[in-house]
Amino acid sequence: MRVHNFSSGPAMLPFEVLEAAASELSDWRGSGMSVLEVSHRGKDFVACAAEAEALLREVMGIGDNYKVLFLQGGASGQFDAIPFNLTAAGDRVDFLNTGQWSAKAISAAKRQGLEVSVLADQADSKYTDTPAAGSFEVHPDAAYLHYTPNETIGGVEFGYIPESGSVPLVADMSSTILSRPIDVNRYGLIYAGAQKNMGPSGLCVVIVREDLLDKARPNTPSVWNYAAMAAADSMLNTPPTFGVYLLGKILQWVKDAGGLTAMADRNRAKAEALYGFIDASGYYSNPVATDSRSWMNVPFRQAKDELDKTFVAEATAAGLTNLAGHRSVGGMRASIYNAMPLEGVQALIDFMTDFERRNG
Amino acid sequence: MRVHNFSSGPAMLPFEVLEAAASELSDWRGSGMSVLEVSHRGKDFVACAAEAEALLREVMGIGDNYKVLFLQGGASGQFDAIPFNLTAAGDRVDFLNTGQWSAKAISAAKRQGLEVSVLADQADSKYTDTPAAGSFEVHPDAAYLHYTPNETIGGVEFGYIPESGSVPLVADMSSTILSRPIDVNRYGLIYAGAQKNMGPSGLCVVIVREDLLDKARPNTPSVWNYAAMAAADSMLNTPPTFGVYLLGKILQWVKDAGGLTAMADRNRAKAEALYGFIDASGYYSNPVATDSRSWMNVPFRQAKDELDKTFVAEATAAGLTNLAGHRSVGGMRASIYNAMPLEGVQALIDFMTDFERRNG
Repeated sequence: MRVHNFSSGPAMLPFEVLEAAASELSDWRGSGMSVLEVSHRGKDFVACAAEAEALLREVMGIGDNYKVLFLQGGASGQFDAIPFNLTAAGDRVDFLNTGQWSAKAISAAKRQGLEVSVLADQADSKYTDTPAAGSFEVHPDAAYLHYTPNETIGGVEFGYIPESGSVPLVADMSSTILSRPIDVNRYGLIYAGAQKNMGPSGLCVVIVREDLLDKARPNTPSVWNYAAMAAADSMLNTPPTFGVYLLGKILQWVKDAGGLTAMADRNRAKAEALYGFIDASGYYSNPVATDSRSWMNVPFRQAKDELDKTFVAEATAAGLTNLAGHRSVGGMRASIYNAMPLEGVQALIDFMTDFERRNG
Repeated sequence: MRVHNFSSGPAMLPFEVLEAAASELSDWRGSGMSVLEVSHRGKDFVACAAEAEALLREVMGIGDNYKVLFLQGGASGQFDAIPFNLTAAGDRVDFLNTGQWSAKAISAAKRQGLEVSVLADQADSKYTDTPAAGSFEVHPDAAYLHYTPNETIGGVEFGYIPESGSVPLVADMSSTILSRPIDVNRYGLIYAGAQKNMGPSGLCVVIVREDLLDKARPNTPSVWNYAAMAAADSMLNTPPTFGVYLLGKILQWVKDAGGLTAMADRNRAKAEALYGFIDASGYYSNPVATDSRSWMNVPFRQAKDELDKTFVAEATAAGLTNLAGHRSVGGMRASIYNAMPLEGVQALIDFMTDFERRNG
């Protein structure tokens, strides 16, 4: 029996995609081989990867002046790879710090010898909001401005795209990519681990504007060298083939469902239902400022903290899994990515209502 | 219909493993979730990863003084990661160069500021042999001696473990790991991309002796920092969960089949059959010195080069796939990893016999 899985990542995938993958896992397209067993340089897989890239370009509206790369090492790998590719040691870079993932990206930038300016530090508000638009000023000599549009742990999401003038804007979109339309042209570089809205863990998508390809340090690891990887169609080394294959299937599912506009409608409806319920409740609460609430990750608390374990255990028994909050934060968290249907959120609300009735 | 797949990697996997994975891909262990969808920090996946590590330790005989890491970025990523972890810029490192993969590792070591000494350069013999044991001397001040026990492209394999004295021995075992017993204690560090004998692409296994964990440069990328990853059970960031899961299944298959001794028997029999046929033929040839022939990758040529495309096309039609040689070498190559049964090699020999009869 299929459960409603609120995991923050690796996360729920569309069931149709899982069933399609299962049905052809031991014989892909009548080849007598699994997609796991074919050479990445064979024409079948090369076509599969090209199709995934074409779908991503179509669904997100990515212009020809951007390269799309399929890399390994996750967004955490990119925390180091971005300084290698876009800076020289000693360069200035600007950051907005809105949570634990921003903070890790900042640590890596420092480790790679950069002069980091944190233009807005929401640690001051315990990571419960985003800086107001226009409240910070980018250094004109910064190599880039980095921010995290959605913080998976805090459940904090930007309601706007920061203005960075001529300074390239760099975004870790791991937990928000494909959840709504975005204007790719505002960005110099977008990167995202696949394991929330795009597929399995182990694949990292990088979308980089071509004018940023000529800045890599001489000692940039080749598997993270954007220019070299772009020239090799992301096959300088063996790519994570199964992840690329699944990404293609998920993008087709997004497209068939109506694309990113439809995803946004669906995600807004789920978020409004859950936040609306929490706000109307005297028992549950969400700490995030109204204009900064994430559509993807909804942390919440109940009035009686001591019942958290009971809540999670009973929810699991009711087919609502992975609701424990991040270990650094506690409480509960419902991650409601693209693949989570509105019925899943409704089932959660029904459970929360019943739990409050019994314990409130 | 299942074919005999001679791909060099990603490569053939045991069919039982594929079928087992397919059967539970949309519902893992009755959880109502796919293994692709579960949190890497959940108890089910943590147990799955621990089981894979325990099996690897058992099958390979890895002592407690070694850490086992599940990383991303492939062996090509390790070409850069090893210098970051084991050296300071300017250190001396020794290499044996036996093919294109050795050469790439050498390039990366130079890129990371190391003083590289190539103790034996088999480019001189067009990568058709290995240096004789005892024919080179390791520098006592070298940070490590690096070699490639099996070169996937040239089909050249060491018949012995190089003597490095007190200097740590580092080996890229991507295409030979699990193919026969090895004495892990002779090594400081073993690394291997999974996509030949261990599973899908996107997972890289690193086996590192504990005394080598304290040497990382301050700017080592965290996802490749051996000490940090060892302390976090390879979960400093999200691991490639599906790869780890499949690795566990494949290791169980190896164990059930009799472990590495049984794999060695099986692989020796396949290699002897194929090389024996080639050597007895006046039509086919293999360029590699007898004592350096790979059990895993068998490049070969036919007397009439102009028939290569015909050979590959007809073989494919006969259910023998991915036999084209590496693009840099030409000719043909049969990769016969653990999952390839003797019957597959026999079918190839039968086809080669018939092809020669018709064209020789």
